[in-house]
Amino acid sequence: MRILVFNAGSSSLKFGVFDLDPGAPLNRTRHVFKGSFDRFTPGGCDTSFNGTRGRAPHADLGVAIAAVPQVLTDHGVEGLDAIGHRIAHGGARFTEATELTPEVMEQIAALTPLAPLHNPANVEGVTRARACWPDLPQWGVFDTAFHLSQPARATTYAVPKAWRDAGLRRFGFHGTSHKYVARRAAEALDTDLRELRLISLHLGNGASACAINRGQSIDSSMGLTPLEGLVMGTRPGDLDPGAFGYLHRELGLEIDAIEAALNGESGLKGLTGSSDMRDVEARAAEGDAEAQAAINIYAYRARKYIGAYAAAMGGLDALVFTGGIGENSPSMRRRICDGLEFLGLKLDHDRNMVADLEGYAAPQIQAYGARVQVLVTETAEQLMIAQEVGAARKSPKPAPQPIPVAVSARHVHLDAAAVEALFGPGYELTPGKPLRQPGNWAAAERVTVEGPKGRFDRVAILGPLRNRTQVEVSRTDSFALGIDAPVRQSGDLDGTPHVRLVGPAGSIDTDGLIIAARHIHMHPDDAARMGVEDGDTVDVNLSHAARALTFAQVLVRVQPQAFTEMHIDTDEANAAGITGHTEGEVVPDMHVTTLTAKSTG
Amino acid sequence: MRILVFNAGSSSLKFGVFDLDPGAPLNRTRHVFKGSFDRFTPGGCDTSFNGTRGRAPHADLGVAIAAVPQVLTDHGVEGLDAIGHRIAHGGARFTEATELTPEVMEQIAALTPLAPLHNPANVEGVTRARACWPDLPQWGVFDTAFHLSQPARATTYAVPKAWRDAGLRRFGFHGTSHKYVARRAAEALDTDLRELRLISLHLGNGASACAINRGQSIDSSMGLTPLEGLVMGTRPGDLDPGAFGYLHRELGLEIDAIEAALNGESGLKGLTGSSDMRDVEARAAEGDAEAQAAINIYAYRARKYIGAYAAAMGGLDALVFTGGIGENSPSMRRRICDGLEFLGLKLDHDRNMVADLEGYAAPQIQAYGARVQVLVTETAEQLMIAQEVGAARKSPKPAPQPIPVAVSARHVHLDAAAVEALFGPGYELTPGKPLRQPGNWAAAERVTVEGPKGRFDRVAILGPLRNRTQVEVSRTDSFALGIDAPVRQSGDLDGTPHVRLVGPAGSIDTDGLIIAARHIHMHPDDAARMGVEDGDTVDVNLSHAARALTFAQVLVRVQPQAFTEMHIDTDEANAAGITGHTEGEVVPDMHVTTLTAKSTG
Repeated sequence: MRILVFNAGSSSLKFGVFDLDPGAPLNRTRHVFKGSFDRFTPGGCDTSFNGTRGRAPHADLGVAIAAVPQVLTDHGVEGLDAIGHRIAHGGARFTEATELTPEVMEQIAALTPLAPLHNPANVEGVTRARACWPDLPQWGVFDTAFHLSQPARATTYAVPKAWRDAGLRRFGFHGTSHKYVARRAAEALDTDLRELRLISLHLGNGASACAINRGQSIDSSMGLTPLEGLVMGTRPGDLDPGAFGYLHRELGLEIDAIEAALNGESGLKGLTGSSDMRDVEARAAEGDAEAQAAINIYAYRARKYIGAYAAAMGGLDALVFTGGIGENSPSMRRRICDGLEFLGLKLDHDRNMVADLEGYAAPQIQAYGARVQVLVTETAEQLMIAQEVGAARKSPKPAPQPIPVAVSARHVHLDAAAVEALFGPGYELTPGKPLRQPGNWAAAERVTVEGPKGRFDRVAILGPLRNRTQVEVSRTDSFALGIDAPVRQSGDLDGTPHVRLVGPAGSIDTDGLIIAARHIHMHPDDAARMGVEDGDTVDVNLSHAARALTFAQVLVRVQPQAFTEMHIDTDEANAAGITGHTEGEVVPDMHVTTLTAKSTG
Repeated sequence: MRILVFNAGSSSLKFGVFDLDPGAPLNRTRHVFKGSFDRFTPGGCDTSFNGTRGRAPHADLGVAIAAVPQVLTDHGVEGLDAIGHRIAHGGARFTEATELTPEVMEQIAALTPLAPLHNPANVEGVTRARACWPDLPQWGVFDTAFHLSQPARATTYAVPKAWRDAGLRRFGFHGTSHKYVARRAAEALDTDLRELRLISLHLGNGASACAINRGQSIDSSMGLTPLEGLVMGTRPGDLDPGAFGYLHRELGLEIDAIEAALNGESGLKGLTGSSDMRDVEARAAEGDAEAQAAINIYAYRARKYIGAYAAAMGGLDALVFTGGIGENSPSMRRRICDGLEFLGLKLDHDRNMVADLEGYAAPQIQAYGARVQVLVTETAEQLMIAQEVGAARKSPKPAPQPIPVAVSARHVHLDAAAVEALFGPGYELTPGKPLRQPGNWAAAERVTVEGPKGRFDRVAILGPLRNRTQVEVSRTDSFALGIDAPVRQSGDLDGTPHVRLVGPAGSIDTDGLIIAARHIHMHPDDAARMGVEDGDTVDVNLSHAARALTFAQVLVRVQPQAFTEMHIDTDEANAAGITGHTEGEVVPDMHVTTLTAKSTG
């Protein structure tokens, strides 16, 4: 599949043509053509076609796009299947590559308040491209989409409700870059992305950090706008919100003037006069104190985000550098990483010095034996846009399939040691009521679960014994206990919080407290019929429930003897307004499957 | 010494009387009297004297202070030696307890733009107290003072120079609380504060985190104002600076209205309607989704700061909770700490539940065997203010003493393995020119030092051999190498960055790259004469240098055969405008000595 990708801004147009190799690793994608029109002025613009620089008379974006068909013809590039557009802001709505119907275009235009500079240029790019290629499908890929998986704790500002209702929340940007970087790193490490706690540092003229926990963006340093977070070329990153009042009272500045300076006169430029890290590094080495201070501030801020995101994920497996500075400054990589040995993170001098990124390579630069893997890779947003469009186009969603839904109340699974500690040496649980999954039963015995805030008596014990104790509660239960339980799949217990269990013969403090992630037990025959495999995720639509909703990202567990059934917890049941068993519809969720796909490289 | 402490606000006056026991641990301080006048209205105010509540007719701060002498007399409290005042903002000027002369009062009033609500009330409190006790010395202790040790990388916002010149920088608050907490924790752990990497979490109605590295505040979550950082009762903490423009365009709000809502309508109140964590926790346990989300956001933000500050210090030895929420909510402590096992941080359920803070106790609540110690302690700002005033009053600084100053250029100390790796098996260095410290010499051999950015050839090797290789460079050198070298005392090399050394026979990558902290080698006779001991820090005044300055916090190392001499590096020499050897004056620095005093408890 051959895809033309556009990144249209107010002063430049970048574009590329990619040939996708379905199912192959990202670095097998063929970059057929690479072009740009830069710095539009009434007198024309700079051009670059496959690396050859020149000038063209085009004075704006519209004329430049209209010239692209001839440029491609001149270079022998033909046979396009679709066009992908980078769209800066998709708000809270666009979670995946989306075909740009007239309705979608209206929604993108309506998001202009969130991206006043970028979305209008993106919209014009789409309109112009449609005029040039009226028969090609046009898709949008959103810079914000990857971050919509972030939990409320990361996206919510602690501000008045009226402001939050007006749309003030954290979004995050560079999403396409972070998503590419995460997938490329997992490929290079030959590890399933779902097993990695990863931090992506995109350090270009704009800069952001992203915490990618098991394939999902859970936090990022840019927020409502691209001003927050790391120090950038001309933007400040984190700043006390009291700065506005201070600047207003001391210097008489109004919001517009402050915001303009935050966008264009801050960051490295504000600290040193130059927004280019190469200049700043050269001056620092000559002893310039301002440049030295700027480098320290820049690296220190990035290092703190690494620590913060490791804390957010409960640890760190890999760190990836990308963007102009991340790719090209060994000394900035080194400066950011120094002092992080306590995380198991350490660079190797030679690997760091010679990191070669040719051909979408993602070399590792950590010291031999260091626990955290550190990689460098070129950012490849256009390639990722082509991939997203390709994946979305070739995988139309199959028809929904009915599935029974069951509600699980809080319960525990015990290991043998726990049974003895709670009920006495040699004690064996008494199997009671059988459950629908063959071989499973509820014990006649009950147990007390206790946390720092409260306790639950007479909690059900489900058998048979497991080789590790697991305590499953709802989110509401976790607040009653006073413990922050993570949402986890059954059995995935490393790093889960401790909780106290009390039985008639004694008590134990055990880890394994989780909110069970919604999941589907599925018989192999049903899996074959629905076209899903063990480990896939699907959406399940409860359109018939009292409070109709769709559960996203439900994990499918195919087991030989399984009774096919979806399990949700009491909070989820309440959210859907269901009380007992009910029925939903499985909608295979291609977006998530694509995102967390196991490496094939 | 008996000290009366005032904390004067616009709507309340809190005061206390303390009897200091010089040299004893903080928890031996006797709290003789505790009083408050609260919620001034035209109809009077609430009172509390040693825990007995009542009403008084006083309508404002001035009348309330004037009533204090009679209150103390009624309770049999007499014989005051001095008065200490909490002053909210000391700007960049006041680093320690300061006697409130008329000149100092003018400077405090001039800082009003930085603390428009607090400094005027503080100034009024001092004026009124002076009228009541004209013969008692009045001292100020500043909420910002403890944080003035923070390096520029932590205090600098990446904003235009004109704004930074206008005073826009990070200050940090709760300094007296964080300083107390750090000292109290070191006492309770029976560890020298100079050996601890510590995070203090002050979680009250206001909330801030502070990274205290070896006794010094190196970062804190409040910045220019108390709005930045953690989620608070009515303040938001961290917020995208783009929020102002967005709220202006979408809701028509101006700076004053936004700032007012950020101060009074945000934080827990903005998220849930209540600023009281006890209400929020109770509602969360009943299933209130807003309250649950608020608790998650609150804990998540705090957890990220722990990770960030661990990264800032290269690891973490102890975490201390204080403030109303930190002291009283086991479930919030638990929620913040869960998921930090990768740092070696884990709570014990029972210890966390029963933490008893009576009598300035500082109980430990970490799990047995956890590497990071976790403590809870009451915040005791008034007690700390009394301590600071007492220490400053009883220790007038001795007269300055002359001392020679020598400039060290970059050099290395090698261990035996390094000599063999660089020069060949069995090689021995050739002692050349003897140095002034007896037994030390410069070797005839030289070595190359290499970093990711650049290299230095022919670097001096100083003998004799050490048991660990150490590479000493200036800060400018470190930028030329491209490695972020920390300022360390000689021999304190754990966690220092790696650097490559190249010799004629081979090369090695070794840790031990430091910027040598300025220090004084001192003969025991000179130490006795100057009244300092090994490990003390002093100020050294170079008033005769071309660019006169005072070097603060110079470590004194008393050694039997030492040639008494201060060592600075080339950057420091340039800063002072000196080229060869010169002479300075030692001024024992009581402030720093107090701060990092070894526990006596």
